[in-house]
Amino acid sequence: MGRVSGQTDMEGSLAEVGLSIRARRLQLDISQEMLAHLANIDRSHMGRIERGERNVTLLNLLKISRALSCRPSELLQAAGL
Amino acid sequence: MGRVSGQTDMEGSLAEVGLSIRARRLQLDISQEMLAHLANIDRSHMGRIERGERNVTLLNLLKISRALSCRPSELLQAAGL
Repeated sequence: MGRVSGQTDMEGSLAEVGLSIRARRLQLDISQEMLAHLANIDRSHMGRIERGERNVTLLNLLKISRALSCRPSELLQAAGL
Repeated sequence: MGRVSGQTDMEGSLAEVGLSIRARRLQLDISQEMLAHLANIDRSHMGRIERGERNVTLLNLLKISRALSCRPSELLQAAGL
């Protein structure tokens, strides 16, 4: 069974999800500010999520994915998770 | 574009993810206590996540999915997300 491979690896996953959110946002050609507005998430918090600096919660991931017209599972898959 | 459909709906998603974690755990025939141990998550917190009473974070979802030998995107997909 694959076990937890350490905190650094896990935090790398946050960065990957942030990149996946950013890629989808750029695909839709909307600004980070607009995404924050659509998802009803504080703009600076949205920036930190995209940079992988915050441990995003499932509810925020749902809000972001709805604002990006995609499924949260798709955002994770795009991040290799 | 699909917009946020309200907080109740979103919280229902937490319950769906909890059920999806529980289903995978039962498939592997391990107790909730063992899952909490494998994922290094407090036992009572693990219970609340399974019951959809906590807004699980991405890092905890990663820890749980690794303990369950599956991908976090699979847990979300099984929850219809």
